[in-house]
Amino acid sequence: MRGSRVVTSEELAAAAGVSPAQLRKDLSFLGSYGRRGVGYDVAHLERQLGEVLGVQTRRAVVIVGIGYLGHALASYGGFAERGFEVAALVDADPQVVGTTVAGLVVEPADAIGRVVGRTSASVGVIAVPAPHAQPVCDALVGAGVTALLTFAPRALHVPEHVTVRQVDVASELQILAFHDARRRAR
Amino acid sequence: MRGSRVVTSEELAAAAGVSPAQLRKDLSFLGSYGRRGVGYDVAHLERQLGEVLGVQTRRAVVIVGIGYLGHALASYGGFAERGFEVAALVDADPQVVGTTVAGLVVEPADAIGRVVGRTSASVGVIAVPAPHAQPVCDALVGAGVTALLTFAPRALHVPEHVTVRQVDVASELQILAFHDARRRAR
Repeated sequence: MRGSRVVTSEELAAAAGVSPAQLRKDLSFLGSYGRRGVGYDVAHLERQLGEVLGVQTRRAVVIVGIGYLGHALASYGGFAERGFEVAALVDADPQVVGTTVAGLVVEPADAIGRVVGRTSASVGVIAVPAPHAQPVCDALVGAGVTALLTFAPRALHVPEHVTVRQVDVASELQILAFHDARRRAR
Repeated sequence: MRGSRVVTSEELAAAAGVSPAQLRKDLSFLGSYGRRGVGYDVAHLERQLGEVLGVQTRRAVVIVGIGYLGHALASYGGFAERGFEVAALVDADPQVVGTTVAGLVVEPADAIGRVVGRTSASVGVIAVPAPHAQPVCDALVGAGVTALLTFAPRALHVPEHVTVRQVDVASELQILAFHDARRRAR
């Protein structure tokens, strides 16, 4: 499909793992209509989706907590194509500070304010152990970050203007097991 | 709160990051009612929630892909308290196979069938690069795994009896940025 100028809803649906009917419906909400028997113009669709999703704007991300998870996040290639740039890495451990991870030198936790200022980061990723999540959150918010992605299994308290999303792997497993058990019981 | 015999909906709500009214409503769906002015009996509530969530049943988990993310998952202490036991680690890289991570010796990818059989794992965690996700998924499902948690940004094709949950970090960031942009525009 890569490199094509036109793509059918069937091809897009297969790639996205949804039904073609659902895909056409979803895209129609964005004002995108394919041509019957032809499909969608790829360049036009890309531009339109990019506008809606804000991918045009490049957003700087600061990752706090450079353990295994922080390493994985810093090394992850998928951010750039979604409009994110990992601009700085921060850790509290003096043994980790100063090391280079994914091309960036890890900076100390007490420099969060300076780091956010220098990089104009609006997005913070929290990959620290649960007890440290709230203080790190407070430091990021205090420095001007307005969007937080946290991996700590802990509810964060933030001012009203800050958006938080939480990825809780243990909860994901639990939800999975719950559905699996139900399905097996049928 | 830890160690208490009784807990109020206000305390539980604060810990969960929801409103007390919402919390009381949610628990009432499970048939759990606190006593007005007293609260919930902790032991009773724990047993009741455990039954609903299936935490009583210990479930074996196999993690495939022992890069930074796999390391983070293998080392994560939060699984045990939710009823999961990381029973085996698998990787395709001969340099990684045979190393010990979080107390487990990493086993080779072509041993998935044997590993699943030996551990009676019903849950598989896929932490491999995107192009390898579907073959790993097929091997796990072929070996009898019925619940999959995948971190690869790729839709997986599975038989009807298999449950899949996907954690896509780039998508999470994108959703976050989308909400943040909307909020700023207000």
